[in-house]
Amino acid sequence: MHSLRGPGLENLDISVQPRSRCASRRGRAARQSVDTPVIAPRSRKIPAYALLPDDVLAAIEDQADWILATIGVEFRGDQTALDLFAAAGAVVEGERVRFAPGLARRLCATAPAEFKLHARDPANTVTLGGDNIVLMPGYGSPFVSDLERGRRYSTLEDFQNFVKLAYSSPWLHHSGGTVCEPTDIPVNKRHLDMVLAHLTLSSKPFMGGVTSPSRAQDSIDMARIVFGAAFMKNNAVMQGNINANSPLIYDEAMSGALRVYAAANQCVCVSPAIFAGAMGPLPPAAVAAQTLAEGMVGIALAQLVRPGCPVVFGSFHSTMNLKSGALTFGSPEANLVTMALSQLGRRLGLPVRSGGGQITASNAADGQAMQDSTGAMWSTLLSGAHQVWHAAGWLEGGLVMSYEKFIMDLDHCGAMLTLLQGFGADAETLGREAYLETGPGQNFLSTQHTLRHYATANYQPEIREAGPYETWVEKGSPTLDQRAEPRWKQMLTAYRPPPIDPAILAALQDFVAARKSSMPDEWY
Amino acid sequence: MHSLRGPGLENLDISVQPRSRCASRRGRAARQSVDTPVIAPRSRKIPAYALLPDDVLAAIEDQADWILATIGVEFRGDQTALDLFAAAGAVVEGERVRFAPGLARRLCATAPAEFKLHARDPANTVTLGGDNIVLMPGYGSPFVSDLERGRRYSTLEDFQNFVKLAYSSPWLHHSGGTVCEPTDIPVNKRHLDMVLAHLTLSSKPFMGGVTSPSRAQDSIDMARIVFGAAFMKNNAVMQGNINANSPLIYDEAMSGALRVYAAANQCVCVSPAIFAGAMGPLPPAAVAAQTLAEGMVGIALAQLVRPGCPVVFGSFHSTMNLKSGALTFGSPEANLVTMALSQLGRRLGLPVRSGGGQITASNAADGQAMQDSTGAMWSTLLSGAHQVWHAAGWLEGGLVMSYEKFIMDLDHCGAMLTLLQGFGADAETLGREAYLETGPGQNFLSTQHTLRHYATANYQPEIREAGPYETWVEKGSPTLDQRAEPRWKQMLTAYRPPPIDPAILAALQDFVAARKSSMPDEWY
Repeated sequence: MHSLRGPGLENLDISVQPRSRCASRRGRAARQSVDTPVIAPRSRKIPAYALLPDDVLAAIEDQADWILATIGVEFRGDQTALDLFAAAGAVVEGERVRFAPGLARRLCATAPAEFKLHARDPANTVTLGGDNIVLMPGYGSPFVSDLERGRRYSTLEDFQNFVKLAYSSPWLHHSGGTVCEPTDIPVNKRHLDMVLAHLTLSSKPFMGGVTSPSRAQDSIDMARIVFGAAFMKNNAVMQGNINANSPLIYDEAMSGALRVYAAANQCVCVSPAIFAGAMGPLPPAAVAAQTLAEGMVGIALAQLVRPGCPVVFGSFHSTMNLKSGALTFGSPEANLVTMALSQLGRRLGLPVRSGGGQITASNAADGQAMQDSTGAMWSTLLSGAHQVWHAAGWLEGGLVMSYEKFIMDLDHCGAMLTLLQGFGADAETLGREAYLETGPGQNFLSTQHTLRHYATANYQPEIREAGPYETWVEKGSPTLDQRAEPRWKQMLTAYRPPPIDPAILAALQDFVAARKSSMPDEWY
Repeated sequence: MHSLRGPGLENLDISVQPRSRCASRRGRAARQSVDTPVIAPRSRKIPAYALLPDDVLAAIEDQADWILATIGVEFRGDQTALDLFAAAGAVVEGERVRFAPGLARRLCATAPAEFKLHARDPANTVTLGGDNIVLMPGYGSPFVSDLERGRRYSTLEDFQNFVKLAYSSPWLHHSGGTVCEPTDIPVNKRHLDMVLAHLTLSSKPFMGGVTSPSRAQDSIDMARIVFGAAFMKNNAVMQGNINANSPLIYDEAMSGALRVYAAANQCVCVSPAIFAGAMGPLPPAAVAAQTLAEGMVGIALAQLVRPGCPVVFGSFHSTMNLKSGALTFGSPEANLVTMALSQLGRRLGLPVRSGGGQITASNAADGQAMQDSTGAMWSTLLSGAHQVWHAAGWLEGGLVMSYEKFIMDLDHCGAMLTLLQGFGADAETLGREAYLETGPGQNFLSTQHTLRHYATANYQPEIREAGPYETWVEKGSPTLDQRAEPRWKQMLTAYRPPPIDPAILAALQDFVAARKSSMPDEWY
């Protein structure tokens, strides 16, 4: 499988022989025996951090209501959406929709607080909401980079590689969506190859196409081949990521795709996209309020299309250097907004997709990249967000998916999932017997208690440790990114696809081939 | 000043002309005018994170009581300490001291919950406890490194350089202690040169010598030359860092130095040093409990020597790779202990020195270094710790102070201090006028609201931003550590010492010369 070359469906070499889904995970952590797969935690056991007091949260919610009542949101070119809002009591003037205070929030109330996102392999099904946590790779990069080949436009092969890598890691719960843009495939056909890859090279949950209503429909039709239309009527098996065109606009492509997902009762993730100072005011309070306003309106539309449709309250926001105009990520202001939005989402009673993740503006997988990414990830995960876009691979403000940073980020995903488990204090963890066995000044390494715990005590990252200085110099002083390089290559070599029913595979391939041949290539 | 070469007092070229203490800070942040010094926040305005519920904290406290009642702590070679504990009701058998449950905690009760640590420049005086936060550089490294000269034993010149750098940065509130070991100075005379550097090259709070009672006394005597013995009777102007010899031992050098600081009513920071599995059991709950037990005993001794003596409940703890024995830093287990200890310290009612900071086992200032450091810093600062050792420069498990990492860490100190300010929501920050001025789909950059806020809206790191990819490549693709290199050199070039009374300077120099000539060099 690692010898895949060139773009497109015809290069897919899907193995159909049954094999353990855990095979690719074997031997990942040194402490694991080869027969024990690493299973990542899927929920948090530590409290969500409450950054803001209730009165500040209420003031932000009041501001969101003011925006929706006074300014409103435009739905451009989508009469169906306008009609739905008008029927629900909103004030529609032209394409502008205004909401009396409280109305948008009330329209969101039919969305479930918690729901399952079913995976092709039921063992990979996740829950969104509650104390659950779902990590997924980066989204939307037109470039990829690795240390050997450098920075370049991403191709379908890169896309497939990242799907394989995400599938092979226990620390990502989700295959992602447009992990990177397969720029060698016509724009109007990319979604077919991407969904095919998610559905065949992985068995984790995934996101479908959203760049037009018809591409959203293709994605859903392909999922129906795998999951069955009947099952999907009442169960979410995929997500669509709907970005508002901030400030305060939904264009027809986005609201149209939103309606397609909602009509199919599939999960709609609504993510306003606000860079403070450009698509909204500068202060964090304003960014949070506008995100809430835009998010509630998108979620309300999903509920008007199909009450009870599963949704995620998402966000994508960051800051800029106001001298240079450069986008910045992992800034303290952005991290504060991330934390506030998780609180606002909890008050809305909905699963939250964080605007954080392991994000950075850095051009290299260097100290800046990990300083930005690690801080953003802490703000994301401590805040109680449920789903994390961009948990691995993201570089250069999202322009690049980096193979090495993907691996570096995975190590930290595992660390953070471990941290989210917290710890308790009981007779076994307090270890009184160890003190009775040793005493002041003595070493605990050989106590029965330590021997009983050492195999499972600590999270073991794969590439974090460099060894003693002298050994490290003998090896050529490899930095973390350099140590990551052999790991992703090794993971691709070891990758084996999850089993799939040959008839389903053939049907998917037929669908893609038919859709591709039904339309001319479009490159814009 | 930047041309200082060679070790020792005789090379100090202290400028005595008056100048603004802010001069060296000018122009540090791009948004600041040359006349506006950057003033770092000194307190948190966001809540401390509560990791553990009360019942788990109570179980850990109960375990600490059990350790002190059943196992006890040894004070080796310090009959004075043993007599003080016996008189206070502890059970002393030989050098072992056991405490009835609750006794150690009661003995800590005379320590102040909050106190000032006075600086030579009153503007740099800090408060320990409450909502205050004090960041200081790394401590104790025998090596330094920089990209030009590589890794090498540190010298007094390096020590002086780091004192200058800490003084020159607004993001460190404190000059530190043994920032790096001046290995070119005899062991028994290093404390004299270090304290002289802190007292003359900086005007921020500092830590004195602790490696023997007489060195502690020298440090206090030097401080008295600057602050006056009368002032120091009732005011803390320095700290001594007292490490327990974990597990459960205080040796005479440490408890003796502790008693010297306490007798002088100067701040005693008690820091047990526990690597889980070696100096204590593996589980986080056990490490937290043992740290609490050892810490309370040291604090109790300080209170017995001088009730009301200011103290800090410190810790130094981390994890190991249990296969290789390598120490690890920034691990999830260690970060959890860091967060728990801040809670335990709050319940003890004392200022907390965190075992975190920007710490890492990495051999280079690379992605690992910042992944480890950033995570450890988040756990430290979110948890509500009051004083942070190792906030800048630490590499390789503390073996190395890195000039470049120092700069990289400073940027993140500023980011985290900004984050700790949180944000509010009021008419100005919500910016309704900006929405009325623009509308859906319009850019906020030119609104009056943005123009009013853009100069102060966002934290501006010094070296974090690399610029667009193409520009960055033209510059040679410098990674964050490479961008840090010119910055520390520039800071040393721009450094100007704070003014000092020539008579005080002469008295300090005389003291150091007299003490140095009073004893032969010792190199062990």
